Amino acid sequence: MVKDSIAPEVVILRLPLYIRALSQMSEEGQTVISSKTLGNRLQITPAQIRKDLSYFGRFGKQGRGYKVDSLIEELTNILGLNKQWNSCIVGVGRLGKAIINYPGFVPEGFKIISAFDNDPSLIGKTVNEIQILPMDEIKSAVKQNDIKIAILAVPSTVAQNVITELLNTNIKAILNYAPIAPKVPETLVLRNIDPVISLQSMTYYLD
Amino acid sequence: MVKDSIAPEVVILRLPLYIRALSQMSEEGQTVISSKTLGNRLQITPAQIRKDLSYFGRFGKQGRGYKVDSLIEELTNILGLNKQWNSCIVGVGRLGKAIINYPGFVPEGFKIISAFDNDPSLIGKTVNEIQILPMDEIKSAVKQNDIKIAILAVPSTVAQNVITELLNTNIKAILNYAPIAPKVPETLVLRNIDPVISLQSMTYYLD
Repeated sequence: MVKDSIAPEVVILRLPLYIRALSQMSEEGQTVISSKTLGNRLQITPAQIRKDLSYFGRFGKQGRGYKVDSLIEELTNILGLNKQWNSCIVGVGRLGKAIINYPGFVPEGFKIISAFDNDPSLIGKTVNEIQILPMDEIKSAVKQNDIKIAILAVPSTVAQNVITELLNTNIKAILNYAPIAPKVPETLVLRNIDPVISLQSMTYYLD
Repeated sequence: MVKDSIAPEVVILRLPLYIRALSQMSEEGQTVISSKTLGNRLQITPAQIRKDLSYFGRFGKQGRGYKVDSLIEELTNILGLNKQWNSCIVGVGRLGKAIINYPGFVPEGFKIISAFDNDPSLIGKTVNEIQILPMDEIKSAVKQNDIKIAILAVPSTVAQNVITELLNTNIKAILNYAPIAPKVPETLVLRNIDPVISLQSMTYYLD
C-alpha cells in the first residue's frame, strides 16, 4: 500500500459501496437513514457498517441515524474522491477501446488522459480523441499529466512485464483487466476486474 | 443463496483465485507447493489458505505441501466447474456486444447461448452468431437451453426491474455490469462487475 491505512483494506473496499447506496437513497429523497436501512440495501449487517465507519470518527448520533448527504460528503473526502484523477490505459485492443469509450468513468472523477500500446499499427491513431502513444513514452507522459492510475487491458502473457515497466513511472494504482493475479510490490495498489473469477464464485451455489 | 454452504461466502470467493494461481504454477512446472508459496503468490496468509481449504476436508499432508494438479481438480469439483454452464446476456448495447465477443468465457466453461433486449431495432439481429430475442421470450429460452446464469448489461435505470423479471425464470445467478447495487432475494446469487467501485477503492491510498 502506498500509505498506511487506519482501516483494514476490506473496510476501504466497502466504502465506495456505501457512497453508491447512499447516493441512490439521496436521489430517492431520503435525508436521514439508520445503519439498519443502509445494511438492508447492501446486505451488510448494521453492526458491520457502524464498525466500518467508526475507523474514521463519529458519524451521526446513537439512535438518530446518519444524515445522508453529509455522510456521502465525508466518505467522498475520506476516499479522496473530491477531485479528478487522471488515468491512462495500457493496451488498446478491443477491450482497451471499449474501456476508453466507457461513459461511466468521467462523471465519477476518473479521466483517461493517455493511451499506450506497442503495436506499430495503432501508434499515432486516436480513440475517443485520445492519441495512442508507444510504451517508451509512458514515463514522461505520466509525469507530465500527473497520472497516478493505469488501467491495464493487455493480454495475460505480457501483463506482469507491463506492471514491471509501470514501477519506473509515477503510477501508483493499477486496475487490471488481464485475467491473471499479478504480483505487485507494496508501493502499488492493485484491483483486478475479472468476470470469469466472479462467474466461478457463483457456480458453487448452483449445483 | 441457492444452497446452504458449508463455507462462508468470503471463502468461496477466494477459491477461484486459488485455482487460477495453482494453474499458473502448474504451467510453470511446479508439482507440489506449500501454503506459504501459494500465499505469497496471492498475498494471502498461509494460515488463511489452510483454514479455507479445511472447510472441504484434508488436502495434502502437514509439512509436505499440496499436490498442485490434484488440488486444482478438487477445487474445480467443489466449485462445480467440471461442466459447461450455459449463460445468457440481457442487454445488447455496446457493453453487451463486447461481452458476447469476449473470448475469455468459453475456455472456462461459460458459454453465452442466448441474448435478450427490448430494443426493436436489435431484435432478430445476431452478434457472434447469437440471435437477439425479445425479453418476453426469456423464460422459455432459459428453460429450453438449461441456462442458469444471466449476464446483465442493461442501463442502471432498468437493472432492478430486469432482475425482477429474471425471478420468474430458471436463472439462479446474475453477473451484473450495471453500476448499481441491486437487491436480490436469497434464492439468487449476484456478483457485480464494477470498475468505478474498484477505482474508488484505490484512491484512498494515493493521497
